[in-house]
Amino acid sequence: MKNNLPIGVFDSGLGGLTVVKELVKLLPNENIVYLGDTARVPYGTRSEEIVKKFSLEDANFLLSKKVKCIVIACNTASAFAGDYLKGKLKIPVFDVITPTVNEANNTQQYGHIGVIGTRGTIKSGAYAVDYSVACPLLVPFIEEGEINSEALETVIKNYLKDLKGNVNVLILGCTHYPIIEDLIQKEMGEEIELINPGKSVAREAKQFLSKNDLSNGQKTSGKKEYYVTDLTDRFVSVAEMFLGEEIKGKINRVSLD
Amino acid sequence: MKNNLPIGVFDSGLGGLTVVKELVKLLPNENIVYLGDTARVPYGTRSEEIVKKFSLEDANFLLSKKVKCIVIACNTASAFAGDYLKGKLKIPVFDVITPTVNEANNTQQYGHIGVIGTRGTIKSGAYAVDYSVACPLLVPFIEEGEINSEALETVIKNYLKDLKGNVNVLILGCTHYPIIEDLIQKEMGEEIELINPGKSVAREAKQFLSKNDLSNGQKTSGKKEYYVTDLTDRFVSVAEMFLGEEIKGKINRVSLD
Repeated sequence: MKNNLPIGVFDSGLGGLTVVKELVKLLPNENIVYLGDTARVPYGTRSEEIVKKFSLEDANFLLSKKVKCIVIACNTASAFAGDYLKGKLKIPVFDVITPTVNEANNTQQYGHIGVIGTRGTIKSGAYAVDYSVACPLLVPFIEEGEINSEALETVIKNYLKDLKGNVNVLILGCTHYPIIEDLIQKEMGEEIELINPGKSVAREAKQFLSKNDLSNGQKTSGKKEYYVTDLTDRFVSVAEMFLGEEIKGKINRVSLD
Repeated sequence: MKNNLPIGVFDSGLGGLTVVKELVKLLPNENIVYLGDTARVPYGTRSEEIVKKFSLEDANFLLSKKVKCIVIACNTASAFAGDYLKGKLKIPVFDVITPTVNEANNTQQYGHIGVIGTRGTIKSGAYAVDYSVACPLLVPFIEEGEINSEALETVIKNYLKDLKGNVNVLILGCTHYPIIEDLIQKEMGEEIELINPGKSVAREAKQFLSKNDLSNGQKTSGKKEYYVTDLTDRFVSVAEMFLGEEIKGKINRVSLD
């Protein structure tokens, strides 16, 4: 039965585990195969051409694991390679941007919508919202676990200064940002709504699977398989920060060559 | 004649252009072929195994350009793959670490020597000096051109606090750091000697070529060829910051596959 096959999720690195976390919340019985391209992370600073190439290699790996659909967890890959992969692959592909923008636009009470993300995501214009700001230093700070530092607060203040007061809704357009959601909320003000694309894509995937009779009917928790293209001790601790649970010993290294 | 062949230089990205700058100062007549692996930069956060694999691919590209020797400009690649490439290749290979440590140790007046670098370089222990500190956020700040920000000064202060007062000599163990040499000098104090490995390896290469009758005897300035594995507009401006001269239109994109 096709519906017992796993959902494939890929990301430039480990940030996509924040998306897995949301998928698990909404679809606890689904089996998931995750690929993080840690040997070539980040994608956010690279060209469209290279991001397309890497994304296709990531997707091909997931296809080899016989997934029933693919979730592109990475915002930059969604922006540069979302339509490309949807055209090329024969299984359903979900990007994180489309459901997020739909959600933001469909809510009438919203005034202006803003988005923060990597240079690649912002430059692509894929989030066609009112305000967009590239925040390239946030990912390194988060990956270093420097999430309570004075320097990070200075950096955040600087990035958000033009958004503050101008938007009612802010899309966290990078898988890493939910980790520092509190700091962003504090700087923007409590009345501003923050949108986590991981939640939006999880809702879309759940709806699609249900509608197309592709949901996994098993009663037990879904099995999880984690693959990365490079593995260091440090990656394990970063992965646990994003996923919010222990992962040690469960990550396998693979080569895409 | 073998001595007319170019010197090959590779780096994880564009930081190695600070090494090219030093090579050009000491060896103005040498032809140089540079490869920056911008599709997979940075190497500093990755595992030894992956850095070896990428470094061998970089070196093989330079061999295809018929270089007479190879300079590994990247500190992380020097640390993880220096001996590996020296054993594997049939032409002379220079890493940035060996001549730098020799220089620091040979100078008797020195008391304690410290080094700052990427996580990979520091973890490798290749710079066997008294104090070593990983400074993973400096590269992102420099690559973003955020070199005069308050946040960077806070980050530098924090990284250097244990070195300050404990070392007389500080090795700038990453190609990017010469760009913020002034800030580091200011924080450490004017009496501390900073060592730029790019200068050390340029001196070693010059001596070796001269001794082995491999110096290029041409009277004109050497020809430069720049190759990268990914190219964006932004990379061009970052490259110019590192090289200290205009490079637009002179960079070629290549694929290592």
